[in-house]
Amino acid sequence: MSERAVAVVLAAGEGTRMKSAVPKVLHKVAGRSMLGHVLDAAAQAGIGRAAVVVGPDRADVEAEARTAAPGAAVFVQAERLGTAHAVLAAREAFGGDDVVVLYGDTPLLSPPTLRRLTDALAEGAAVVVLGFEPAEPTGYGRLIVEGGELVRIVEEKDASPAERSIRLCNGGLMALAGAHARALLEAIGNANAKGEFYLTDAVEIARGRGLTAVAETVAEEEVMGVNDRLQLAAAEAVLQRRLRERAMREGATLVAPETVFLSHDTRIGRDVLIEPWCWFGPGVTVADGAVVHGFSHLEGAHVGPAASVGPYGRLRPGTRLGRKAKVGNFVEVKAADVEEGAKINHLTYIGDARVGANANIGAGTITCNYDGFFKQHTDIGADAFVGSNSALVAPVKIGDGANIGAGSVITKDVEPGALAVARGRQVEIAGWARTFRARRAAEKAGKAKD
Amino acid sequence: MSERAVAVVLAAGEGTRMKSAVPKVLHKVAGRSMLGHVLDAAAQAGIGRAAVVVGPDRADVEAEARTAAPGAAVFVQAERLGTAHAVLAAREAFGGDDVVVLYGDTPLLSPPTLRRLTDALAEGAAVVVLGFEPAEPTGYGRLIVEGGELVRIVEEKDASPAERSIRLCNGGLMALAGAHARALLEAIGNANAKGEFYLTDAVEIARGRGLTAVAETVAEEEVMGVNDRLQLAAAEAVLQRRLRERAMREGATLVAPETVFLSHDTRIGRDVLIEPWCWFGPGVTVADGAVVHGFSHLEGAHVGPAASVGPYGRLRPGTRLGRKAKVGNFVEVKAADVEEGAKINHLTYIGDARVGANANIGAGTITCNYDGFFKQHTDIGADAFVGSNSALVAPVKIGDGANIGAGSVITKDVEPGALAVARGRQVEIAGWARTFRARRAAEKAGKAKD
Amino acid sequence: MSERAVAVVLAAGEGTRMKSAVPKVLHKVAGRSMLGHVLDAAAQAGIGRAAVVVGPDRADVEAEARTAAPGAAVFVQAERLGTAHAVLAAREAFGGDDVVVLYGDTPLLSPPTLRRLTDALAEGAAVVVLGFEPAEPTGYGRLIVEGGELVRIVEEKDASPAERSIRLCNGGLMALAGAHARALLEAIGNANAKGEFYLTDAVEIARGRGLTAVAETVAEEEVMGVNDRLQLAAAEAVLQRRLRERAMREGATLVAPETVFLSHDTRIGRDVLIEPWCWFGPGVTVADGAVVHGFSHLEGAHVGPAASVGPYGRLRPGTRLGRKAKVGNFVEVKAADVEEGAKINHLTYIGDARVGANANIGAGTITCNYDGFFKQHTDIGADAFVGSNSALVAPVKIGDGANIGAGSVITKDVEPGALAVARGRQVEIAGWARTFRARRAAEKAGKAKD
Repeated sequence: MSERAVAVVLAAGEGTRMKSAVPKVLHKVAGRSMLGHVLDAAAQAGIGRAAVVVGPDRADVEAEARTAAPGAAVFVQAERLGTAHAVLAAREAFGGDDVVVLYGDTPLLSPPTLRRLTDALAEGAAVVVLGFEPAEPTGYGRLIVEGGELVRIVEEKDASPAERSIRLCNGGLMALAGAHARALLEAIGNANAKGEFYLTDAVEIARGRGLTAVAETVAEEEVMGVNDRLQLAAAEAVLQRRLRERAMREGATLVAPETVFLSHDTRIGRDVLIEPWCWFGPGVTVADGAVVHGFSHLEGAHVGPAASVGPYGRLRPGTRLGRKAKVGNFVEVKAADVEEGAKINHLTYIGDARVGANANIGAGTITCNYDGFFKQHTDIGADAFVGSNSALVAPVKIGDGANIGAGSVITKDVEPGALAVARGRQVEIAGWARTFRARRAAEKAGKAKD
Repeated sequence: MSERAVAVVLAAGEGTRMKSAVPKVLHKVAGRSMLGHVLDAAAQAGIGRAAVVVGPDRADVEAEARTAAPGAAVFVQAERLGTAHAVLAAREAFGGDDVVVLYGDTPLLSPPTLRRLTDALAEGAAVVVLGFEPAEPTGYGRLIVEGGELVRIVEEKDASPAERSIRLCNGGLMALAGAHARALLEAIGNANAKGEFYLTDAVEIARGRGLTAVAETVAEEEVMGVNDRLQLAAAEAVLQRRLRERAMREGATLVAPETVFLSHDTRIGRDVLIEPWCWFGPGVTVADGAVVHGFSHLEGAHVGPAASVGPYGRLRPGTRLGRKAKVGNFVEVKAADVEEGAKINHLTYIGDARVGANANIGAGTITCNYDGFFKQHTDIGADAFVGSNSALVAPVKIGDGANIGAGSVITKDVEPGALAVARGRQVEIAGWARTFRARRAAEKAGKAKD
Repeated sequence: MSERAVAVVLAAGEGTRMKSAVPKVLHKVAGRSMLGHVLDAAAQAGIGRAAVVVGPDRADVEAEARTAAPGAAVFVQAERLGTAHAVLAAREAFGGDDVVVLYGDTPLLSPPTLRRLTDALAEGAAVVVLGFEPAEPTGYGRLIVEGGELVRIVEEKDASPAERSIRLCNGGLMALAGAHARALLEAIGNANAKGEFYLTDAVEIARGRGLTAVAETVAEEEVMGVNDRLQLAAAEAVLQRRLRERAMREGATLVAPETVFLSHDTRIGRDVLIEPWCWFGPGVTVADGAVVHGFSHLEGAHVGPAASVGPYGRLRPGTRLGRKAKVGNFVEVKAADVEEGAKINHLTYIGDARVGANANIGAGTITCNYDGFFKQHTDIGADAFVGSNSALVAPVKIGDGANIGAGSVITKDVEPGALAVARGRQVEIAGWARTFRARRAAEKAGKAKD
């Protein structure tokens, strides 16, 4: 029923308390900008269109809006004349649909809450205001509800003692019925101390026209606006808690949930074990039965069924681990397919590569994928065995079942089943170390005297 | 006094809320299965024998029971007909001893609590029930205590308002005196809505026979059953808190205790310093004065006096660090003796090896201990100096005081005091890099135009 | 006004509950000894001189006192005869100045609190006592305040019921006006059960002489003394919370503040992003716009503007990263200048070196800076490209724009613009790996039969 609605997201605030060169709504929580979270919540709630109101010269905010909501209309609020004025900056986007006014700095808003707003419109309300009951109401406007209807929003400074004792406060979010939205907003005046146009006035205007206003109540965290970096961290904490609980409810073990950081889009299967201190950047999926050991850092990667990562495993974007593949400690993998049962156990960098099924990559192996100008591909065949401390200079192909001798620099393709070695011969100078040490020790003693 | 007792551990539950292919009681906290914790608590409380009741076809649970308590008897509960029925599945194990009924999913139960149960039997009670006072009693059965005796356990749905106001709830655990255990349990009927045999009925049956029932009260966390992954994480948190506090009280500094994860059997000496983010898997001992820097991951390892690990040190099973030995960053050690004063400072893998006293292993050293089929041993003598980026191909022996040139691949034994080098000669092509770059830059510019 | 004051810091306690060979006041929080924190707070409060009272044979405490406060006078308290006796051990340092009595185990004391003590003296008080209102007053002495003056400090065991109901407790810290300090302290007797000289008696003695005593109140955490390792961890937690909040208020994003550990002297710029799990040891500065990815460990290092560290980056003392320089995963840098735009992306050790602007250091590069006796320098020119798995044996110089072939061991200087390669030729033995595997597999099967 909310497909005939438009979310108007106010994202023009500068957020000076962030002390940042980055506009406030672009700061991220759980791997996505706050603006992106709000637009996504609107889309998930079935609100068909989005309009974002940005400040002047904010191409970065506009770009993020279009990334998060490809069809979003973007409007510039040239002057700051209050919330109603900001909403009307997007009036061309209304088109007679319901208007849901959101803020780009409330990343914890949930789709069900938005559905409650549009549902209330569908049930006949002209204006719906989202309220909450804070632990400490001081400073907030109060929602005056009588007989199930919202009759007025009163600022604290204007409130009577009785009104101040009301716990239900104004969360700022508002929905207006399509048939009345524009008219109500345009009727708002600025005859007040600051000369601004306040959205809250829509309630009394609607009632003056015989229309109905109502309030919906949500948890405080949903309407929590982020104004500084402490609040940003607090929002991150709430979102992480939600994401961790979801993963556990779906059958993953997080040994210490408070030490696992997920992104908004992380997908984790059943019987996945995640040890303490793991970071999941955007774009990670972990299949059933996989283990992510501690100190692992994943982004843009797929971990296959019963595969194993870490401890100290870093999977960068474009990594795909097959079933039972293993990436061990101090290993970085980027843009690589690591096929079923392949093992990359220690101290290795694999980039722009395929590692064939059941291949074994020795400790200290490096794919030399970059010559300072271009990235090149390394192809390692199934069952190949790459000896430790080898460098594979791409483009290069190691055949199925080939062996590479430890310490080799491989610059030419190696045939399947062959052994390739590229290293110096071992020579030994008897007594050299003994003599060297005696000399150095004498030098050191001499220096100590100086 | 409890040596004449048998712990009957009910471990047949499927734990569907875990959403796991692994049976609930095998999920681990602090490095040991929940079942293992319960069996260990019983053993530590001096309960001489254990009987574990498992579901059909649960060889895995049976195996874990025998691992945790080698002499445990295992019984299969073929049908699920209630707790009393489950306990009676183990009736052959009673042998006239006191019976202490435990649950395989309560890993926080402590030995002193179990001793209070058996002590109460020794003081004449026929039935002892473990109670607790939850913050929120709703949903729990209440223990009705009159004149110091437990007269009845009443389910909440059957409770009068006065009974509901009672805070003392049924924790589920029960001890029955050896002289009466079997008779009381066999007298329990199933004339109830679900047609099940409830252990709680033993209280009224005992009293009907003129016997005494009593309640013992413990903290809620001790009887906390784990039913889903959130509760598993909560149990882990409680156990970790206990383990950390013990380590600190015994004289270790945990800079940030909440970031150190210990196993049930971790042993940490005095004046050990543990920086944030350290993981101690099973089987770790750390001697006095050692330092474990941040981001370290230890399992099955011994850290000697005044030795140093990390940051980013990984000690795998079979590692023994001698006095003042040092394992530095991005170093993995497995099945190796690192003797007094030896240093392995950076980016190294040492596996299946001995590193002699005061030897210095350069950055990037790899012991090539695996040829794809067998593991081989590397022996590095005292005072040896292994140059950086060397590969030691096992089996191989580096003599005392020998030097290995940087970048060498050592495949043959090196004599004491000798220098061994195995690498190519340095050749230089003047201007090559300049030309190469000019060409590549042109190619790149060309591609950019395409 | 407090420049004519001396801080007398009592640091003779043994701290047996620490269970440590290290004296209590030398245990560290936020990278500095507790004694150092107290001396620093005094200096920041403008208290011009410091005198530290140590136990016998505590050269370590004396050394730390002189390090933290170079001009500090150190006195030995030979016998333990009470707090007043301890303060008088430093009587030679009084010199007629105000005396502020502090304790070496209260690292959370803040400079503003100390200023309130000296301000109260400046306003005419002869004795100022620092009080606090603990959640649980039981066990503390109570401050009896009447008409704005402190009339008495009463021990709990001597307190009347009315006195016990007082919430204001004795925090132990005291300031005495210069004109009276010595006389008041010397007037304190030891006619009490333990035969000790108690500082608290100064209040009544002062009042008996017609002088004024007052109480100042602070938060409990400021006067919190550290007596065991749990309290040490609690103090660390408070200090970390303060440091993190300061960093966030100044414009840094700490994604998860509770996972970032800072030192007392860490300086973090604006729009710095710090991912979870980062450790800042003493002496770190991070310039505006830099990113410190997770799992990074920094000490004594400067991170330049828009530079990037980690994940898994370790910067040791003497590291300086220029603008937009990048140190990536599993990289250790020590005593090195990494100039603007240089990249050290993976698995590398750079020690005692310069890395020129825009140089690119390949994965697995090691500077071999130590021959077992001396440290030597490596100089890498601007725009140089060091191929992967290379070892640079110092002292050595790589010219501007030179290339090093992958897997080379470079022992001689390389000219600007040249290519240097030092490695073996690649040879291939067809079918060798196939044969080897067949043989090994047969051996393994044979062994399995044994």
